[in-house]
Amino acid sequence: MAGYGWISFTTDYGTFDGFVAACHGTIARLAPDVRVIDVTHHVPPADVSRGAAVLAQTAPFLPPSVHLAVVDPGVGTSRRGLVLGTPNGLLVGPDNGLLIWAAEALGGIEIAYELANKDWTLGDVSRTFHGRDVFAPAAAKLALGAAPSEAGPRVDPDTLVRLPDPVVTVGDGWIESEVITVDRFGNVQLAAGGEVLAGLGPDLEVNGAVRAHRGSTFAEVGPGDLLVYEDSAGHVAIAVNNGRAVVVLSVRPGDLIRISERL
Amino acid sequence: MAGYGWISFTTDYGTFDGFVAACHGTIARLAPDVRVIDVTHHVPPADVSRGAAVLAQTAPFLPPSVHLAVVDPGVGTSRRGLVLGTPNGLLVGPDNGLLIWAAEALGGIEIAYELANKDWTLGDVSRTFHGRDVFAPAAAKLALGAAPSEAGPRVDPDTLVRLPDPVVTVGDGWIESEVITVDRFGNVQLAAGGEVLAGLGPDLEVNGAVRAHRGSTFAEVGPGDLLVYEDSAGHVAIAVNNGRAVVVLSVRPGDLIRISERL
Amino acid sequence: MAGYGWISFTTDYGTFDGFVAACHGTIARLAPDVRVIDVTHHVPPADVSRGAAVLAQTAPFLPPSVHLAVVDPGVGTSRRGLVLGTPNGLLVGPDNGLLIWAAEALGGIEIAYELANKDWTLGDVSRTFHGRDVFAPAAAKLALGAAPSEAGPRVDPDTLVRLPDPVVTVGDGWIESEVITVDRFGNVQLAAGGEVLAGLGPDLEVNGAVRAHRGSTFAEVGPGDLLVYEDSAGHVAIAVNNGRAVVVLSVRPGDLIRISERL
Repeated sequence: MAGYGWISFTTDYGTFDGFVAACHGTIARLAPDVRVIDVTHHVPPADVSRGAAVLAQTAPFLPPSVHLAVVDPGVGTSRRGLVLGTPNGLLVGPDNGLLIWAAEALGGIEIAYELANKDWTLGDVSRTFHGRDVFAPAAAKLALGAAPSEAGPRVDPDTLVRLPDPVVTVGDGWIESEVITVDRFGNVQLAAGGEVLAGLGPDLEVNGAVRAHRGSTFAEVGPGDLLVYEDSAGHVAIAVNNGRAVVVLSVRPGDLIRISERL
Repeated sequence: MAGYGWISFTTDYGTFDGFVAACHGTIARLAPDVRVIDVTHHVPPADVSRGAAVLAQTAPFLPPSVHLAVVDPGVGTSRRGLVLGTPNGLLVGPDNGLLIWAAEALGGIEIAYELANKDWTLGDVSRTFHGRDVFAPAAAKLALGAAPSEAGPRVDPDTLVRLPDPVVTVGDGWIESEVITVDRFGNVQLAAGGEVLAGLGPDLEVNGAVRAHRGSTFAEVGPGDLLVYEDSAGHVAIAVNNGRAVVVLSVRPGDLIRISERL
Repeated sequence: MAGYGWISFTTDYGTFDGFVAACHGTIARLAPDVRVIDVTHHVPPADVSRGAAVLAQTAPFLPPSVHLAVVDPGVGTSRRGLVLGTPNGLLVGPDNGLLIWAAEALGGIEIAYELANKDWTLGDVSRTFHGRDVFAPAAAKLALGAAPSEAGPRVDPDTLVRLPDPVVTVGDGWIESEVITVDRFGNVQLAAGGEVLAGLGPDLEVNGAVRAHRGSTFAEVGPGDLLVYEDSAGHVAIAVNNGRAVVVLSVRPGDLIRISERL
């Protein structure tokens, strides 16, 4: 088997402790020639949907990889570990919805296995750190070329745990969508795909209160003004030129936002 | 000499400045084929015992390495630089206790040298950034295969600066232990090793006030309840299922915690 | 062409989103053998001068590299992208002053090109993420050995956007200088080069109020006392032994500080 030269790595471990390094070390010991791209380790603790969103939006820009992701509040319970196969790479992590959106962004789930092979784990498996003891070793094995089918029994994709689909409603001259992320710059990203913008004119208002302009570049609006645009991940997003839309709108992930044409 | 393919790197430099990158650059210039695993650079400034704890708990999971660690409030003074040899890798850093616990975790100090070889330093050595100018170059030399004995004069391990041993007392139906770290998830790790749990029943109380259950997985207790368990580094730790034990217990590193059987 | 084995990478993207990873992925896909040294991704959003300072102080310690830097509040406007040639490496980023100080630290701008070659960009170029779609691919191409002249038309270096030079005034027994950075340890770095200290005696005062000692090592002054010294980047800096000078002096980047001999 050819395997993969790269492992991507997404967690909620933070970088203040040695958790991320212990996983890097596990990979280095098993697969020293494989290289790791850290997606982020600053997913808020146990925030599965945030982890799922950032991985889904980043994975398509990575080289063919084994995507290792661990946001795992159910560690040590009977929740399954998974290996998912897609046309553009493998995913390894817990069966809690974390991997699904990325699998879809990589072309969809072609095949799924439960990660159950005891020969793939690292010595004595801790009950609280499967990133190091179960998932990282599996990612290393797969990167080295082990067949996903060796991971464990095949799983029907319909049985996988999925996060609820974020709310997106498109009307005549308006859209309503859940916020999925707020980025470092305070830009507010909606679940709605950028294609829905085609149905809206240039003069908009957000939540019936704040004027906004539909455009494509921050500088199209004046400093402090709102821009509604398709962001670099293909989602509708709201930005403030030289400002922070998250502050102006006072929203957070999970909130609903309505964008409508201004009458 | 065979040398090492990996350098691990632990500091209190943070990642907002270029300090870590300057050290990576120094290593890359001297030993371009060596790869670096960052353990953490978020040790609180000058917190030697925190640095010592995180390195000791992570190093055993890394490939054979030169472990470079710099938490160095005494930089520029007469404090020595050290190279320590263990059965499972070398350690490089200041003689202030930072390296000792990791050396013990790697099998114990077999030999110690003062880092004094002027040929190993980087050009003009700054008085305030020995990470870049002294320690990183030494780690690179050692990774390339230089003999530790070339670093400088041999040092009697009994003369090394050591941190005080954390307090651990084990009684009949109780243990008392210093807190050594609090992790990203708010789990409170004690200095006591997990083996002391064998002497305790399942129904516990912490500090004579808060009920806890001895177990091994977060989900063994109800949401908000306390679990006393052996953590993934082999220490006794206290967690709250779906919560933060550090908040419930209101403790920080250095505090004493008493865990006793509930009567 | 020989190219470069290393790309350094400096941004204001933070590490909570997947932006940095998407750029790493772009580089990995185009130039898989090239290795990336992250300088910092914690430049405050849109703080071009902070990005310029950290890169200038770090680049000289890196191996010969393509230095990729993106702090780019003008993304999507007509601001140019640049490739700058120096005797010690190339720089790639926006034409907003970000690259100039680093170019000078690397020996000065020998040649400059506008980054305009459409064949160098990544598929559909987003209007808001040129780091991923324009600058990272260009850095990868250059690291692989593409000639900088292929990037686009030659640019007269005199036409490049430059940040204002920080204020530095040297008098008889005093210096006045702008603060350029405050580091993780609270040390306050001035724009003035360390050579100006030769004109000052050992007994100083800062801003006419706080006593300080001119020296070279933190421990030369008592705990809580101020040290004026040449820092590891060759600048005048002010530290407090076992403390944070930024708190004692209550300053921030851009503020003027006066250091004078005590009468």
